[in-house]
Amino acid sequence: MANPADLFTRHQDTLQRALTAIRERTYWSAYPENLKAYGSPEPGGVPDSQSAKDGKAAFDGYHGAAFPLTQAGTDGEVPGERSPYGSDLGVTYPHTDVDALLDAAQSAMPAWRDAGPDGRTGVVLEALARINMRSHEMAQAVMHTSGQGYAMAFQAGGPHAQDRALEAVAYSYAEMTRHAAESVWEKPQGKRPPQRMAKRFTVVPRGVALVIGCNTFPTWNSYPGLFASLVTGNAVVVKPHPRAVLPLAITVAVVRDVLAEAGFSPDLLTLAAERDGEGLAKTLAVRPEVRLVDYTGSTAFGTWLEQNAHQAVVFTEKAGVNAVVLDSTDDYRGMLANLAFSLSLYSGQMCTTPQNLLVPRDGITADGEPRTVAQLGADLAAAVDELLGDDARAGALLGAVVNDGVRDRIEQAPSLGTVVLASRAVANPDFPDATVRTPTVVQVDEADRDTYLQECFGPVSFLVTTDSTQESLRILRDSVREHGAITAAVYSTDDKVLEAAEQAALDAGVALSENLTETVYVNQSAAFSDFHATGANPAANSALTDAAYVASRFRVVQSRRHLPAEAGDPG
Amino acid sequence: MANPADLFTRHQDTLQRALTAIRERTYWSAYPENLKAYGSPEPGGVPDSQSAKDGKAAFDGYHGAAFPLTQAGTDGEVPGERSPYGSDLGVTYPHTDVDALLDAAQSAMPAWRDAGPDGRTGVVLEALARINMRSHEMAQAVMHTSGQGYAMAFQAGGPHAQDRALEAVAYSYAEMTRHAAESVWEKPQGKRPPQRMAKRFTVVPRGVALVIGCNTFPTWNSYPGLFASLVTGNAVVVKPHPRAVLPLAITVAVVRDVLAEAGFSPDLLTLAAERDGEGLAKTLAVRPEVRLVDYTGSTAFGTWLEQNAHQAVVFTEKAGVNAVVLDSTDDYRGMLANLAFSLSLYSGQMCTTPQNLLVPRDGITADGEPRTVAQLGADLAAAVDELLGDDARAGALLGAVVNDGVRDRIEQAPSLGTVVLASRAVANPDFPDATVRTPTVVQVDEADRDTYLQECFGPVSFLVTTDSTQESLRILRDSVREHGAITAAVYSTDDKVLEAAEQAALDAGVALSENLTETVYVNQSAAFSDFHATGANPAANSALTDAAYVASRFRVVQSRRHLPAEAGDPG
Repeated sequence: MANPADLFTRHQDTLQRALTAIRERTYWSAYPENLKAYGSPEPGGVPDSQSAKDGKAAFDGYHGAAFPLTQAGTDGEVPGERSPYGSDLGVTYPHTDVDALLDAAQSAMPAWRDAGPDGRTGVVLEALARINMRSHEMAQAVMHTSGQGYAMAFQAGGPHAQDRALEAVAYSYAEMTRHAAESVWEKPQGKRPPQRMAKRFTVVPRGVALVIGCNTFPTWNSYPGLFASLVTGNAVVVKPHPRAVLPLAITVAVVRDVLAEAGFSPDLLTLAAERDGEGLAKTLAVRPEVRLVDYTGSTAFGTWLEQNAHQAVVFTEKAGVNAVVLDSTDDYRGMLANLAFSLSLYSGQMCTTPQNLLVPRDGITADGEPRTVAQLGADLAAAVDELLGDDARAGALLGAVVNDGVRDRIEQAPSLGTVVLASRAVANPDFPDATVRTPTVVQVDEADRDTYLQECFGPVSFLVTTDSTQESLRILRDSVREHGAITAAVYSTDDKVLEAAEQAALDAGVALSENLTETVYVNQSAAFSDFHATGANPAANSALTDAAYVASRFRVVQSRRHLPAEAGDPG
Repeated sequence: MANPADLFTRHQDTLQRALTAIRERTYWSAYPENLKAYGSPEPGGVPDSQSAKDGKAAFDGYHGAAFPLTQAGTDGEVPGERSPYGSDLGVTYPHTDVDALLDAAQSAMPAWRDAGPDGRTGVVLEALARINMRSHEMAQAVMHTSGQGYAMAFQAGGPHAQDRALEAVAYSYAEMTRHAAESVWEKPQGKRPPQRMAKRFTVVPRGVALVIGCNTFPTWNSYPGLFASLVTGNAVVVKPHPRAVLPLAITVAVVRDVLAEAGFSPDLLTLAAERDGEGLAKTLAVRPEVRLVDYTGSTAFGTWLEQNAHQAVVFTEKAGVNAVVLDSTDDYRGMLANLAFSLSLYSGQMCTTPQNLLVPRDGITADGEPRTVAQLGADLAAAVDELLGDDARAGALLGAVVNDGVRDRIEQAPSLGTVVLASRAVANPDFPDATVRTPTVVQVDEADRDTYLQECFGPVSFLVTTDSTQESLRILRDSVREHGAITAAVYSTDDKVLEAAEQAALDAGVALSENLTETVYVNQSAAFSDFHATGANPAANSALTDAAYVASRFRVVQSRRHLPAEAGDPG
C-alpha cells in the first residue's frame, strides 16, 4: 500500500523541476531517451527498468492470451491487433458495458477528488515512473501497432510521451494550486468591526473524461489529455484506436495497479476496447457523464465531436497541410539532408511531416548560387536516396506503412503531378511481410489547389512552384488559416524574408522552424520547450500542452463561513 | 499620446497587488466602493473623479442626443432605452454594419498583438482607471437601465465591476506571462556539440470576441470577459442588451479614447447596438471571425450559443435554482435579517438570489427552541416587513422591477402555493412611475417539483417543506446538478450537517455560504476572493473569473532557429 502523501514526497523533486521547465521552456527531460539507459546498472541508468530483452519478453508474453485487465462491467472480449510488420499480436482485450463502466468511473471520483492536488499528483507521478521502467515493452507495443521503427517507437512512444505526460501534470498542478486552498477574508467596515470569513477552495473534477487514441502515436498523442484529466480529479475512459490498443492497455494496467495500491478505485482509469464497427467513441462522447473529450484523428470525426458533444469540453487534433517555404540557404547540403530526414521519418506518417514545399518558379539561391526548381528537386531526391540507400537503415527510419489508406495514397501520387522523387519498396529482412515505402515528392503548380491544399497523410509531399517567395508566404498564411497545420518552416538567408515568415506564422497561428540544417527536425517537438500545435488554426483546437489545455479540466468550489472578529486562523 | 510602456509602469503596482490577490484570495479591492471617495479632495479619495453631481450632469448630458461614438461602419442609429424608473433616456446609439465592424476589428488586431502583454495591460489598466473616475456617471446609467437602486448601481455597476475586470486582467496577465517570451534551448548530444536553438513564444489573439450583455448587470457581468479578451489581444465587439445599452456605450467610449491615445485603432472595442427584433447576437455569434463569445442571460439562448457557435469558445451564464438549507441556528434573528436582505436586494433580480428555502416539515431549531414551519414563515415575513417598513429605504434597496416578465411572475406567485409573505407595491417618491415591489415567499411541498425546480427570476421565493434536513440536502444536490445554481447556503448548528452540506455542494459543484447572519449576503461575491459561479453545474459553464476563464482567450505561437554552439543569448 503506497500512501499518496509519500508518493508525492517521492516525486516532489521531479515535479518541481518540471514546474521550472514549463516556465523557462529551456531544455529538460525527466525520462532518458537513450535506449541503453534502461535495464542498465551504469550511472545514469533508470533503476529497476526493463532491458530491451526484458521488454521483448514482456511483449511476447501477451501473445495468445487475454490481456490482464480486470475492470468494471466486462461483458466479453475483443480480438487484438495485427502488426503493420506482418503478424497478429494474438492478444484479446476485455469488452466493457458502457453503463457499468461509467457508473464505476463516477463512483470512483469523490475519493479521488478528496485526495487533493498533492495526493493525486503523487499517485500519477508514481504511475509515470513505473511506465517509464517499462519503456522497452512499450516500444514493442508501439512499434507493432503504429508501424514505427523500434528506436522511434521507444523514444516517441516511451520517454518522449512520458515527458509530455509529466508536462501536462506539471501544468495541471500549477493551475490547481495557483490559488490558496484556504483563506481568511477580512473586510474593513470603518468604525465597526471588520467582516471576517474563513473560506475554503476545493478543486473538483468536471466528470468522466474520454480519451480517443490514434493509430500512429497511441501514447504520445493520448498521454497529455489522459494524465491531465486524471490528475485534476476526473475518472478517465480510454478508447484506443482498434489497431493500436496494446500501448494504452499497458498504460491503463500500470496506472490501475498504482491507483489500487494507493487505496483508490482502479476504475478511475479504464480501457474501452471496441468491437469491429461498434462506433464506441460516438456512443461515449455524447454520454451526459462524459465532460471532457480528447481526440486525435480525422477532421471529419473531430468536427463531429465538436458539433455534437456539447455536454463536454472537446479537445481535437485534426488534419492539416504543413508547409515549408524555400527561399535561399547558405547550407544547401544541410537543408537537403534535414528535409530528406523529415520526409522519411516514419514514412511521413506524422501530423508534423512537411507536405507542401513552396518554391519560387525561378528557383532558389543555395550557397550563393542560383538553383532551378528542377535542380532542387533532383538534389532533394538525391538526398533522400542517400539517406535511405542502405535497406537496413532505411527500414529502421521508415518503419512500416500503417494502413492501406497510406499505401493507396503512395500509389496514386504519380497521377497528381510531375514525379520528382518516386517511392520505392524497401525489404525489411527482420519483417519480410511489412510494407515499407520511401517517400515520394510530386511537383505541382500553386494553381493546383485541389491537390496540395488537402492533407495527403503519409510519405507524399508536393514541391509547389509559386510566383515568388512573397507568394509562397501568402500561400503559407492562407493555407494554414483555411486548412490548418501543425508545423511550418522557412529557409532563407534574408532577414526580411525570415521576418515576413514570422509574421505570416503569427497571423496564421502556426509554429515556425527557421533554417533547420542540423539534427533538429521540423516534425519533432521537444517537451517542456516546444508547444505541439497552437490551437490557433484548424489543425487543432488546443496545444498539447499548455495551461489552456488543462485549466478547464477542473473547477474550484468554495465554501465560506463567518469567523469571530477576534478569532485566529481557520482550523 | 500615451505610451503603452508608460501606462504599464503607471499601473504596475495595481497589477502586482492584483496578482497577489488572485493567489491569496484574501480581502482586497482596487477601486473604493464608498460613494464619497469620488469627487472628493479628502485622503482616500479617487483623484480626478466625478462627484455624484458631476456624474448626474454627465448622465443628463446624454439626453436628447446621439451617443458620442464614431466607429467603423456606422449605417444608422438605434433608439435608446426607457428607464425602469419611468422615463425615456432619450439617447440614440449608432447602428453598425456587421461586415464593416468585423473588418475593422480584424484589421486592428495585429498591432495590438504586437504591443505584447505589458503594452496591452498598460492600456487596459489606464482605461479601467478612467472608467473608475466616472463611477457616478456609470451609476446613473446602470440605475436607469437595470432598475437597481443608486447605491447598488454605483457599487455593483462601478467599483465592484471594475474590480472584477481588474481580476480578469490579472489572471490574463499571469497566464500570458507564465512562460518565458524567449529561451535558449540546449540539448546535450553526448560527445558531439549540443543542439542549440533560440526560441520565441508570442501570445496571439484567437480572433474577434463577442460580449453579449444582460439587462440587470450590464457592466458587472460583461466586464470580466470583455477585459480578458481585450488584454489577451483580441478585438472585442460588445452587443449590449437593448434595454441596457448606455453603461456599455460609456465603457466602450472610454476604452476607445485610451486605445486611440496610445496609438491603437479604437475599433479594437466596438459597440453593436441593435434595432428592435434584429437578432444581432445570433448573427454575430456564428460569424467565422468571431472566436470567443461571452454571454449572460436565458438558458434557451445560452444553450443555442453552445450548440451553434462551434467556431468559437463560448462562455455562458444561464438560469439556475439557488437553494438555502434551513436546519438550525443559534442566531435566529441574524439569520432572518440576513435572509430578508438577500430576498429584497434589487427585488431578487439577481442570478445569486436564493429561490428555494428548504426546511424540514417538522420545523427547525432556533436559539435552542423548536420553530414550526408556520412560525418560521411568519418570522421571515416579519423580518422582511421590518427591513422594508420605510418606503424611502425600501425603494433604495428594492430598486425597480426591470421588466414585465418579473412583474408577471410576482402577480402569478400566489397561485403556486400558500402565500407566506405577500408582495406589496412601494411608492418611490423620487420616481412615481417606477414599479417597485417587495418580495413574496410561497410555501410549497418538495413534491411540487414543477414549481420550484425552475428558475422564477425576480422577488419570488419558495419555502419548500421536506421530510428532513437530509432530504433537503439531497434536493440541494440534485436540483443544482440538474437545474444549476450560482449560490447555495446552509444554516445549521450541527457540524455534521455543515459537513454534509459541504459534501453536497462539492458533489453538485456550487459555492456554499454557511450560517450567514451578519452583513455578508449569499447573493454577493467579493472580487479577488469569491469565485462567481463554478462552471461545474448547468447555471454557468465557467467561473467569472478564474484561470480557466482566460487561458483559452489567446494562443502561443513559437518560432525557433539554430544558434551556433558557441553563441551567447539570442538577440
